[in-house]
Amino acid sequence: MTPEALLSALNWRYATKQFDAARTIPDEHWDALEESLVLTPSSFGLQPWKFLVVEDPAVREELKPASWGQGQVTDASHLVILAARTDNSDEDINTWIARLAETQNKSPEEIDMYAKVLTGFNGSLSPEQRHAWNSRQVYIALGQLMTSAAVLGIDTCPLEGIDTKAYDSILGLEGSGFATAVACALGYRAETDKYATTPKARFDRGQIIEHVVAE
Amino acid sequence: MTPEALLSALNWRYATKQFDAARTIPDEHWDALEESLVLTPSSFGLQPWKFLVVEDPAVREELKPASWGQGQVTDASHLVILAARTDNSDEDINTWIARLAETQNKSPEEIDMYAKVLTGFNGSLSPEQRHAWNSRQVYIALGQLMTSAAVLGIDTCPLEGIDTKAYDSILGLEGSGFATAVACALGYRAETDKYATTPKARFDRGQIIEHVVAE
Repeated sequence: MTPEALLSALNWRYATKQFDAARTIPDEHWDALEESLVLTPSSFGLQPWKFLVVEDPAVREELKPASWGQGQVTDASHLVILAARTDNSDEDINTWIARLAETQNKSPEEIDMYAKVLTGFNGSLSPEQRHAWNSRQVYIALGQLMTSAAVLGIDTCPLEGIDTKAYDSILGLEGSGFATAVACALGYRAETDKYATTPKARFDRGQIIEHVVAE
Repeated sequence: MTPEALLSALNWRYATKQFDAARTIPDEHWDALEESLVLTPSSFGLQPWKFLVVEDPAVREELKPASWGQGQVTDASHLVILAARTDNSDEDINTWIARLAETQNKSPEEIDMYAKVLTGFNGSLSPEQRHAWNSRQVYIALGQLMTSAAVLGIDTCPLEGIDTKAYDSILGLEGSGFATAVACALGYRAETDKYATTPKARFDRGQIIEHVVAE
């Protein structure tokens, strides 16, 4: 992709308020977006997450009041809930290490060293810190998902202003070891969405990017 | 971009361990990556972040021991530190609201309502929660940056295993209202980096993506 094409896609993207409820993301595009979630990088490769694609319209109706009544929840082609693991147990880590060993054919010594570093780091955190760490990883996935959608010409709306506890209850996440972090609606903007043509508001680049140069 | 091209880019991406120190990202590409940071969506549009592009080789040398000696810090074409605002004051919010009003030509009533919702939400959080909230936003930027780089054919390595306090000290962030959250090295993989051809290790899609369908 050229830099111009990337910038064009990122400028085209906006937090879509009204989706065209009649349009569905084609299977091949949706498959690529699910794969973008799977391929999201995470700290130590842990993937401390679960992504729920809510296809049941009744469940989406239930989620709407837990989302300040935002229409994106029911009208967008797809709705994904990005959930973070609430803690990382030694078993979680061992499961991951086993997967890594199997995939990458590493030597037992390499695997053992990696496991020790990971277990040591994980153990140095409190359960709350581990949940917060996992939640931050989930936001990498949110970023990768929205950027991937934009370059495919698919609209998104990140949904952070949701009642995550109500989501957990509706989605049966309570006691599952995962908790809702954030959601994202995906599909196609309605022609009537006035926000599509609202100028993008950002601080000037010079206010947020600083170049550290030799004095 | 086609779904195939996107997947090809995301599969090509890996956490680059060895960068080719002789190769520099061309200006036009780097400019697009900076703009991808500027254009990153954030909760309420707040942009509670600062991005430091460390061009001074001496500073990069200083950061290296605070990064477990990882060579990416000095060898990659570019190094970005992604910092989160440590708190959101009423003044920060007012600055943002003023910018929004100026850019989007909204009515005073609309602006006032938005400001109230934002101030109310922000005030409902503790300072620690605000810092954590801001840090999660920074991870959206990390995701958007890495995905944008991948589609441009530029390599990245996210650097989370860094001594963020030492980074703050070296970069003069202490007392600035911003704190290092994570860093990212960008450039081009060295031909000798064996990790480039190591199989990508991920859980099966079925283990991390769940479809919520009508029963």
